[in-house]
Amino acid sequence: MYKVAVIGWGNVGYHLSLELSRQGIQTFVVCRNYHRKTNASGAEKNLHLVNSIAELPNDIETVFLTVKDDQIAAAATKLPEKMVQNACVSHSSGVLPANHLKGVVPNYGIFYPLNSFSRDQDFNWAGVPVFIESGQERVSRFLHKVAEEAGARPVKNDDLIREHLHLAAVFANNFTNHLMALVSDMLKKRGIPFDYLHPLIQTTVEKVLRMDPAKAQTGPAIRGDKATLQKHLSNLEDEDLKTLYRQLSRSIQKLSTDESDKEL
Amino acid sequence: MYKVAVIGWGNVGYHLSLELSRQGIQTFVVCRNYHRKTNASGAEKNLHLVNSIAELPNDIETVFLTVKDDQIAAAATKLPEKMVQNACVSHSSGVLPANHLKGVVPNYGIFYPLNSFSRDQDFNWAGVPVFIESGQERVSRFLHKVAEEAGARPVKNDDLIREHLHLAAVFANNFTNHLMALVSDMLKKRGIPFDYLHPLIQTTVEKVLRMDPAKAQTGPAIRGDKATLQKHLSNLEDEDLKTLYRQLSRSIQKLSTDESDKEL
Repeated sequence: MYKVAVIGWGNVGYHLSLELSRQGIQTFVVCRNYHRKTNASGAEKNLHLVNSIAELPNDIETVFLTVKDDQIAAAATKLPEKMVQNACVSHSSGVLPANHLKGVVPNYGIFYPLNSFSRDQDFNWAGVPVFIESGQERVSRFLHKVAEEAGARPVKNDDLIREHLHLAAVFANNFTNHLMALVSDMLKKRGIPFDYLHPLIQTTVEKVLRMDPAKAQTGPAIRGDKATLQKHLSNLEDEDLKTLYRQLSRSIQKLSTDESDKEL
Repeated sequence: MYKVAVIGWGNVGYHLSLELSRQGIQTFVVCRNYHRKTNASGAEKNLHLVNSIAELPNDIETVFLTVKDDQIAAAATKLPEKMVQNACVSHSSGVLPANHLKGVVPNYGIFYPLNSFSRDQDFNWAGVPVFIESGQERVSRFLHKVAEEAGARPVKNDDLIREHLHLAAVFANNFTNHLMALVSDMLKKRGIPFDYLHPLIQTTVEKVLRMDPAKAQTGPAIRGDKATLQKHLSNLEDEDLKTLYRQLSRSIQKLSTDESDKEL
């Protein structure tokens, strides 16, 4: 039976280890103080939770490092010599190159699922791109199989594409979430429930998934509705928010002009 | 049977008229050249489509003006004297006050659904806040019933709340959609399919609907991960995009500090 180790039990490590064990892979998780982190659902009951790298069996075939980017190399150096001679050590960073561990361990790779993971929510692997690479053909095949069996979308790693997607993900996830946080904060200050916006947010995302977002753009900025833009600015008290509103509105108008130019 | 007229057959007028007729209300739609606008699905077959206001019956009880904000007053003045003596004339603007038609017609009101409508997509009324007001108790009850029967969330109009929600909607819908349009444009230029991001976008919105977005914030800005912020900036070629990236990242850090302050 294939034996793997997951080192780091943050959001990615947690969901990855659950999926590996669900697939019947013998999964060892290195996690200090895991008693405090185990989930009430008991979903992790098939995992072998251990306190330290020293407790791992030597015949691990793939090590998944799901620690923070700046700890990946250090974690790899802590693995016992005997283990890394045979095992492939893969990292899960969106920004570091696939060969980040070159020179640190003999067999290195990458297994990077492009999504946002939360410990307290089941993870839906459906269609999630997973960037995969390993110098060992055998490991590559294994990683592809893991991704496929999870319902994800395995992609042969291409550092450049992954890099651009990681940046794009910041806009699509971090910045979008932040706009919602700003809105939630604005409304909270006025005692208006944020959930008034839930149906709109659902509509917005349905459209984004269905059609070219540039073509779906609506609102006062693209209409050039100066009266509404002015009214909105006068309703914003915070100077930084006013600046952000102006800049995003200008950006909408600029992209719309670029798009029209292309159609000429 | 209750008789209504919908004047203006844009995205709101279209879906509102379909819903009214679905509820068994006799619905007249004024739409010039409607032959060119009818939908292949034939969903509008129960509507009475007419070319001009002059073709409307005189015993209309509620007129829904769904034209653009700056045309609302002008459209109201075109209604025949006989009709407006009895009918309530309501508008559907997110920014104009409920009494915008005061002085133009004797009975005025508002029926404003807060969402984003597209002609080519079924509209889901579930939970959509609809701001309602009318000086005639009878009309108010009718409008509430329409909203409720559609599955929406009728709200007694409060100009101030509606105004703030309209502004919030620009952030939640227009700006969010624009971020996606920027991302789609960035990826297109590199030949990378936008649909790689679909699962992430779905995860993002699921989180926003489930938890306080300020608490769900992830990414390099909130982590203070300077190396990744620098790498992302170096990957952005467009100066305006760099500015937007910096500003949104700063705004994430600022809101995060504000949030921590509150917890002290």
